[in-house]
Amino acid sequence: MTKIKYELIKNNKGDENVRLGKLITNHGTFLTPLFMPVGTLANVKTLMPEELKACGSSVVLSNTYHLWLRPGEDVVNKAGGLNKFMNYDGPTLTDSGGFQVFSLAKPSDISEQGVKFKSHIDGKELFLTPEKSIEIQNKLDSDIAMSFDECAPYPSTRQYIENSMRRTLRWAKRGKDVFNNPNQSLFGIVQGGEFEDLRKESAIKTVEMNFDGYSIGGTSVGEPKDTMYNMISYATKYLPKDKPRYLMGVGEPIDLLEGVSRGIDMFDCVLPTRLARHGNCFTRHGRINIKNLKYKEDFTPIEDSCDCYTCKNFTKAYVRHLITAGEVNGGRLLSIHNIRFLIKEMEEIRQAIKDDKFYEYKEKFINEYKNGR
Amino acid sequence: MTKIKYELIKNNKGDENVRLGKLITNHGTFLTPLFMPVGTLANVKTLMPEELKACGSSVVLSNTYHLWLRPGEDVVNKAGGLNKFMNYDGPTLTDSGGFQVFSLAKPSDISEQGVKFKSHIDGKELFLTPEKSIEIQNKLDSDIAMSFDECAPYPSTRQYIENSMRRTLRWAKRGKDVFNNPNQSLFGIVQGGEFEDLRKESAIKTVEMNFDGYSIGGTSVGEPKDTMYNMISYATKYLPKDKPRYLMGVGEPIDLLEGVSRGIDMFDCVLPTRLARHGNCFTRHGRINIKNLKYKEDFTPIEDSCDCYTCKNFTKAYVRHLITAGEVNGGRLLSIHNIRFLIKEMEEIRQAIKDDKFYEYKEKFINEYKNGR
Repeated sequence: MTKIKYELIKNNKGDENVRLGKLITNHGTFLTPLFMPVGTLANVKTLMPEELKACGSSVVLSNTYHLWLRPGEDVVNKAGGLNKFMNYDGPTLTDSGGFQVFSLAKPSDISEQGVKFKSHIDGKELFLTPEKSIEIQNKLDSDIAMSFDECAPYPSTRQYIENSMRRTLRWAKRGKDVFNNPNQSLFGIVQGGEFEDLRKESAIKTVEMNFDGYSIGGTSVGEPKDTMYNMISYATKYLPKDKPRYLMGVGEPIDLLEGVSRGIDMFDCVLPTRLARHGNCFTRHGRINIKNLKYKEDFTPIEDSCDCYTCKNFTKAYVRHLITAGEVNGGRLLSIHNIRFLIKEMEEIRQAIKDDKFYEYKEKFINEYKNGR
Repeated sequence: MTKIKYELIKNNKGDENVRLGKLITNHGTFLTPLFMPVGTLANVKTLMPEELKACGSSVVLSNTYHLWLRPGEDVVNKAGGLNKFMNYDGPTLTDSGGFQVFSLAKPSDISEQGVKFKSHIDGKELFLTPEKSIEIQNKLDSDIAMSFDECAPYPSTRQYIENSMRRTLRWAKRGKDVFNNPNQSLFGIVQGGEFEDLRKESAIKTVEMNFDGYSIGGTSVGEPKDTMYNMISYATKYLPKDKPRYLMGVGEPIDLLEGVSRGIDMFDCVLPTRLARHGNCFTRHGRINIKNLKYKEDFTPIEDSCDCYTCKNFTKAYVRHLITAGEVNGGRLLSIHNIRFLIKEMEEIRQAIKDDKFYEYKEKFINEYKNGR
């Protein structure tokens, strides 16, 4: 058992940002760029490990904050770590808890020491520090742990972002100092909001601490798309080529392409499963809502060309029936489709990079996706 | 495509009530006695067809009332029938809608013509008749349809039960007269409450109409267990030996044994899936609730001896975590276990009858189940 490694296989011809690589983990080797489904509470909602595998999943995410509260990191640790607990034999990644905490905390609750906030379950007062986040993650024993960071709201003043980003650097250092799990890798997180110089400072100083990989945080918090894409570019240019780069919380099909264009290797998002529970699904011709009356007697799959379990076995009319009747299996079938959709997109992106045709692929995909049927 | 057939293989030695047989359907031949999971809205909650098959399922039930309201019998019919709609290649059975209707209707809403009641979804006034129930079921195209009956409440006066039972006989005749699906079988339903002579009259007159099989209704509505067991015995003695007998809505492990003792071939119940959603599961040593604190760090399966997917892959601690955190996968894993539990019990019952050891098996099972760990 050892730390993860990243190996660059090749760039798309003429653009060293766009990279095909591989992530070597204790639970297998996987080609990048890749998309990671989110299993908040040590399970991807409504899906079992075999179904994730059938979707082509590699890394699966879980949330440190949620597992800290339920069932507690000690239970997971005694089970033999997150993989064994959830019976998933692919790699796992835990976030730091920061993102969940900041959505529950008031700004006045944030101090140099850590963050004070109330449990979303019982309102109990809790205090999370960089050291505590790492201690929990060490016990969860995921393949990849994240540094505790502040995900600042958008918009914030430049002064707020600057102070917050520098505190995140100090928190990263404190977390790294107490990190104690030889089988687990630790990623640093680049912050700095929409400010190019702050992203640069954050990237350079985070890289100086020598993490096993680097994340880009503070995106997908309400900023315009172009702002988000810039945030990525500002950061990736200072990240080392021999480490993986992970854009946190981004999963829109077009954003995956824009992220890859800017040097991202890993993505995660709750979007495919959250959309599914509300009847929304991705198609190559844009997002549709299966509840639409026009699908009531549509006895064709969501997408004829899709190779997912849902499309191979069920019709739009059936999935629509399940969703409109409030049956959990409706969300389950759409979760499978949506996760497979994003993972298949990543497979095609990798093939396109291999063939030096990434930009052709990107243009065609975006055209079809934006222009609908 | 044709009607179902029942063939008796053998009785348990010395007791011609206890029977091993086979049910020959358009979707395969299955040994009886058997347990049928309930897929209310054309799906067993949280489970997919492959999972039901892996549990050893044969016939799967759906509810006519629910499918009438959503998605409507015409949608199912246009999909090619219930099997194709839900992509289940085993046999399907639909109830008549009577049971759901009577839980929504007031006694004053019941007339010779049919039953007036309000939709549980939008309060819209609806009217269901024996002819309408059969028409809907003909369109749903299940392998087995049920006659429209009144499931009288318990307790009711003898006079009420007598009138209700005789009306149910007239309804059965009306339904049979309009029945029009050569690939579908139709069962009659014996009513008569806890009164031996009324059950006898109901059984004899229902059998005179010559149905493809016979159900026993009006059980599991609050009566004591011994009363229920008597209701079965009163009826089965007048049922023909060359037709299957189905005890509706009964699924407690011990009740299955008592039903088989009295000549029952088929059972259905929502119990395994409903219990599962609340964290309850069957074990050979009685029912347990997985939420119990003592399972928090119990890293063993629900039952070491169980061959279900849940027990082969997950621990009590993990399932408990999912259930207590409100994750749907918890109910899913327990549904698999509970359904497999009842189906495996039926497999063992069949083996015991084959070996002429049904009563030894029954006594041992009940002893273990009642005496706990």
